[in-house]
Amino acid sequence: MMSSAMLYGLGVGPGDPELLTVKAMRLLQAVPVVAFFAARGRPGVACNILAGLIPESTEQMRLEYPVTTEIPVSDPRYGALMGDFYNQSAERVAAVLDSGRDLALVCEGDPLFYGSYMHVHRRLEGRYPIEVVPGITGMSGCWSRAGLPMTYGDDVLTVVPGTLPKEELAARIANCDALVVMKLGRNLQKVRHALDEAGLLERALYVESGTCEAEIRRPLRAMQGVKAPYFSMILVPGRGRAP
Amino acid sequence: MMSSAMLYGLGVGPGDPELLTVKAMRLLQAVPVVAFFAARGRPGVACNILAGLIPESTEQMRLEYPVTTEIPVSDPRYGALMGDFYNQSAERVAAVLDSGRDLALVCEGDPLFYGSYMHVHRRLEGRYPIEVVPGITGMSGCWSRAGLPMTYGDDVLTVVPGTLPKEELAARIANCDALVVMKLGRNLQKVRHALDEAGLLERALYVESGTCEAEIRRPLRAMQGVKAPYFSMILVPGRGRAP
Repeated sequence: MMSSAMLYGLGVGPGDPELLTVKAMRLLQAVPVVAFFAARGRPGVACNILAGLIPESTEQMRLEYPVTTEIPVSDPRYGALMGDFYNQSAERVAAVLDSGRDLALVCEGDPLFYGSYMHVHRRLEGRYPIEVVPGITGMSGCWSRAGLPMTYGDDVLTVVPGTLPKEELAARIANCDALVVMKLGRNLQKVRHALDEAGLLERALYVESGTCEAEIRRPLRAMQGVKAPYFSMILVPGRGRAP
Repeated sequence: MMSSAMLYGLGVGPGDPELLTVKAMRLLQAVPVVAFFAARGRPGVACNILAGLIPESTEQMRLEYPVTTEIPVSDPRYGALMGDFYNQSAERVAAVLDSGRDLALVCEGDPLFYGSYMHVHRRLEGRYPIEVVPGITGMSGCWSRAGLPMTYGDDVLTVVPGTLPKEELAARIANCDALVVMKLGRNLQKVRHALDEAGLLERALYVESGTCEAEIRRPLRAMQGVKAPYFSMILVPGRGRAP
């Protein structure tokens, strides 16, 4: 029976190839097919991280998003387009598994933490054996490079996508201890304003391309720009019990 | 000059030794001294993860907590005892660095995310060059093994220590999307009650010894017990945009 081929949801971490796990590295050498998501005309973040790590004989499958930011996520067309895309992606992955070959669908950061992998996972769950290999999250990579202790003692950590509407963003960060704001992109100015209102601007650190050579870190209060890459984030460390 | 010895804050992940990063594995082979925290009479969680991974010639430094749960953290004696302990630990680490030898202080999970490492970090920051190597967090390890997509689209993730007082716990988990409750221990019954009140019990998954051979996973609603190990957790997945 051929259907025992494995799907691996493989986290490849925040950017530095040395931050892959030993397990991810082992599986990348072993699987015959590696699939990855990418925006149109871009090499793909996960694919960039893997440059030089995959054997030349490995088959690569590129899953190209039909849209990224051209259509707002609130537009019904966005949901329809992306739903179709994930259906097709899942079927392309399934076809490889049906041929008896294991496949690793790689994902920057951790696969089950805001990862596109999740959309394929929930479509194929139950149909195929699946193993998810966790990855270092972007936020762990960023706070480690910054040497920023994030959560002490009873601190609560809140992770908020910067894509939230202004009022909801403000409500979610009110009274928080430690905070991470992800998915900045064109939301930077809105996020900055919300942090200022919440009294968090002084403690906020902006990080771009965390753990990569191009990494940029600066206090948010010192930033003048209103735009940032989508994969940038803001860290606000907690101030809990520190004997 | 001898003072260029490096301190590494080294995350060793949630339990499975294959979930160490390539970088952590490389450094563990290279540093002459490895330090770790441990409770009295226990081998130490991080030390257990490393069994067999460190060369025999490596010097090991055990940093033994004077108390864990014998004194409540609200007692002033707790702060005083732990403050002294972290001072002494930092000075033991400093003495090795002063001798010109690099030292890795290992930490289960991620060093800057609720890690005891942070207390040594903030005492030695500025005195010595420090590099923090992120680790797979316990929560990533647990949701990966469970194959549980945690945060979709605009989901907010809230990470709450179960050690919080009942009322604060209830306030923090009200209206949350995705939730992780860490540090369960004797707080399990209180946490279960709070999740039930917040309407989250149905979606809550209990995980113990995540990624280890002894791993236990079960729906929280099916659990009868009132106690759990300190290093167990509860996961409540988000239900955001999933086209």
